[in-house]
Amino acid sequence: MTENKKKTIPRRPSGFPELLPGEQISFNRILQEIKDVYESFGFSPIETPALELSEVLLAKSAGDTEKQIYRFTKGDNDLALHFDLTVPFARYVAEHFSELTFPFRRYQIQKVWRAERAQKGRFREFLQCDVDIIGTKNMASDAEMLSVIFSVFQKIPSAGNFTVRISNKNILTGFLENLGLDGITSEILRSIDKMEKIGEAGVLSELSLLNVSDANIEQIFSFLRTKGTNREILEKLASFKILNNLFLLGISELNAFVSFAEKMKLPQENYKIDLTITRGLDYYTGTVYETILNDYPELGSVCSGGRYDNLVGYYSSQSLSGVGVSIGLTRLFSKLKEIDNLTVKKSSVADVLIIHMSEDLFSVSHKIATDLRKSGIPTDEYLETAKIQKQMTYANKLGIPFVVILGSNEEINEMVTVKEMSTGLQSLVKQNNLAIWLKDKR
Amino acid sequence: MTENKKKTIPRRPSGFPELLPGEQISFNRILQEIKDVYESFGFSPIETPALELSEVLLAKSAGDTEKQIYRFTKGDNDLALHFDLTVPFARYVAEHFSELTFPFRRYQIQKVWRAERAQKGRFREFLQCDVDIIGTKNMASDAEMLSVIFSVFQKIPSAGNFTVRISNKNILTGFLENLGLDGITSEILRSIDKMEKIGEAGVLSELSLLNVSDANIEQIFSFLRTKGTNREILEKLASFKILNNLFLLGISELNAFVSFAEKMKLPQENYKIDLTITRGLDYYTGTVYETILNDYPELGSVCSGGRYDNLVGYYSSQSLSGVGVSIGLTRLFSKLKEIDNLTVKKSSVADVLIIHMSEDLFSVSHKIATDLRKSGIPTDEYLETAKIQKQMTYANKLGIPFVVILGSNEEINEMVTVKEMSTGLQSLVKQNNLAIWLKDKR
Repeated sequence: MTENKKKTIPRRPSGFPELLPGEQISFNRILQEIKDVYESFGFSPIETPALELSEVLLAKSAGDTEKQIYRFTKGDNDLALHFDLTVPFARYVAEHFSELTFPFRRYQIQKVWRAERAQKGRFREFLQCDVDIIGTKNMASDAEMLSVIFSVFQKIPSAGNFTVRISNKNILTGFLENLGLDGITSEILRSIDKMEKIGEAGVLSELSLLNVSDANIEQIFSFLRTKGTNREILEKLASFKILNNLFLLGISELNAFVSFAEKMKLPQENYKIDLTITRGLDYYTGTVYETILNDYPELGSVCSGGRYDNLVGYYSSQSLSGVGVSIGLTRLFSKLKEIDNLTVKKSSVADVLIIHMSEDLFSVSHKIATDLRKSGIPTDEYLETAKIQKQMTYANKLGIPFVVILGSNEEINEMVTVKEMSTGLQSLVKQNNLAIWLKDKR
Repeated sequence: MTENKKKTIPRRPSGFPELLPGEQISFNRILQEIKDVYESFGFSPIETPALELSEVLLAKSAGDTEKQIYRFTKGDNDLALHFDLTVPFARYVAEHFSELTFPFRRYQIQKVWRAERAQKGRFREFLQCDVDIIGTKNMASDAEMLSVIFSVFQKIPSAGNFTVRISNKNILTGFLENLGLDGITSEILRSIDKMEKIGEAGVLSELSLLNVSDANIEQIFSFLRTKGTNREILEKLASFKILNNLFLLGISELNAFVSFAEKMKLPQENYKIDLTITRGLDYYTGTVYETILNDYPELGSVCSGGRYDNLVGYYSSQSLSGVGVSIGLTRLFSKLKEIDNLTVKKSSVADVLIIHMSEDLFSVSHKIATDLRKSGIPTDEYLETAKIQKQMTYANKLGIPFVVILGSNEEINEMVTVKEMSTGLQSLVKQNNLAIWLKDKR
């Protein structure tokens, strides 16, 4: 390459975040906690391609989704990047139906892409951590999702306290049908879903545009304001005596859900019925969830989901109900990073760096490194020829806690000097004993 | 959804593989081994966006790459899915240069996309497991890559024995320059790279098309056939007495590389100099690697890479050399799956399934499940109401080794029946003691 060639500016399209190594290490640690929780509940991993055929991906979508999608043609294929993991999951289940065992518990952790308008906390590429049970109508599964969410957030103490807001879409849909608004329930639910973004005034004007009468708007708002403990809200709902089948189904499902959650002895302050929760997506047909961090409500929901009755039905004559939630880890982490200032701690996975006074010590250095690695101690070797000070600076910058120093005399008497970086203390340790010594210190 | 609506066929674009849960569990286990090895060497994780700006991604590419790329326009952005992880890594290093510590050791495990003609063993979406050290010219780093490859394949015994074929691109380039073929060395190297695909005859006819004379072609083929142990080949190369700087640099680098590898005491039969290894990609400028499984050479290379001198230079005035290799896990796994028939073993991550004779036992079931999960035993609960036989069938199909059976009497006297599925043996175990009992049995 000639030096006078014009350089390309190294930059990313906006809305596509990436992390520095220290941040990525923290991110991966949380990701591992989530995986561990999912697997502890017996959810098995699957992955689906990032690109799907557009006709498959958009089988069920409304116009809003199409605008937000990265879609293009390559050869004969009309392709699109998946915008969530639920639709690909439905396709997966339909495609592999005869090879799966139901109820099928799966988790799926992958990036998804949405061509949204870029703004703070909104990403165009982000990691979703989905967990679903499909092939069950039992509300015990809906309650188990709560248990999964609780177990995950217990493992992320820096997120602080949280509230899972729950509702059942049938209740509000039935209530709207009872008001004679049958044809436009989806539109009204999508509008109510935006309550926190656009406020009551915004929702009100959207409902007016949908030709909902003032009297009905008042009834809807009054209904949405139903407050109290979970049991109190359930009692109030029953007391309305609305004889709409969907409404009654919703109440019965929510009742069963709350009963199961009570039997699980989950702390009541952490899950609250909130009738404004509707989820924008059409495919939810029962329980819906949103999770907010109590200290950071402005972040929006960090774990959402719901029950769906007929998602697979777009691809198959099989009728399969399921329920699931998804943690938006990219957004959650963007806040955790601020809270914890996670980056400064350690920018290397290594716990030990081996440095040397001379390249002649390469054999010894590699032997020690291999022994430590086999003992489960991640070990970095400084392979360049450099002054000891420079090698020490490398360890310091990366926050590697122990440095093994090889000087020529150590090669002879099989001792090494180990410097504990936090204290500056140096110890002379037998090579044979080094792994045990370090494990003891860590 | 109305039942008479036409169904969308659930299918994927060709070349986009996905796995059944049991296969995915096996795949993830191997993936974890690779991550563990990478981290044991002190490589830190990073991830880059799947989509990059096309001008950035294609800063260094030749026409072949552009044809194989998924590229499209969205809004004002000309975007492309990354086709490898090396170019995004170079962009990452240039963009975050001042925030990184060099030599920078990173690993990066992500899907990449190439719009290749679909054929067996060739995928359009596949997982690459990259590991690189950047900011080093020392051949100790090149040798360390061998050590990384060895450590990985030791953890995948079913892959059998393997050979890392190594060379140094400068040697062949220098040899060609010495023949007076200066202007077309890249083209010749790309042609030689295809030797295994198109055979000697194919390479011969390509070289003729490049107007290489018959005499030169004969010299090139004779050179490429240089055989022997690593030391013997190095001696032969020296004996050619070719006074081309690149040739001499290549020999000196390869010599240093082999010396370091010898000091590491890596088994000599597992790494062999092979002058036909050139790697198709232009950006390699020194050491090159390919890895074949001795029992499955037709699979092609499952771990390739090399040294690059000026990759970051396309984005920055920084001059940074690096070296790295990449395991193509999707391709490797496609073979391991055949060898091991890995799918049949276990299709669930759960080691225990709790089944129940009545829904009334939900509280007990959930309590036991929670205790087992906290003890590190992945536990599935059967949450549906179903006959015991159906619940047992579920455990059998998934290969879950232990089933805890809750009958009404167990609730009273705090005992549970545990069935070991492999033997059919049933034991009565105290609830309090269940986790310890199971850990003992596993």
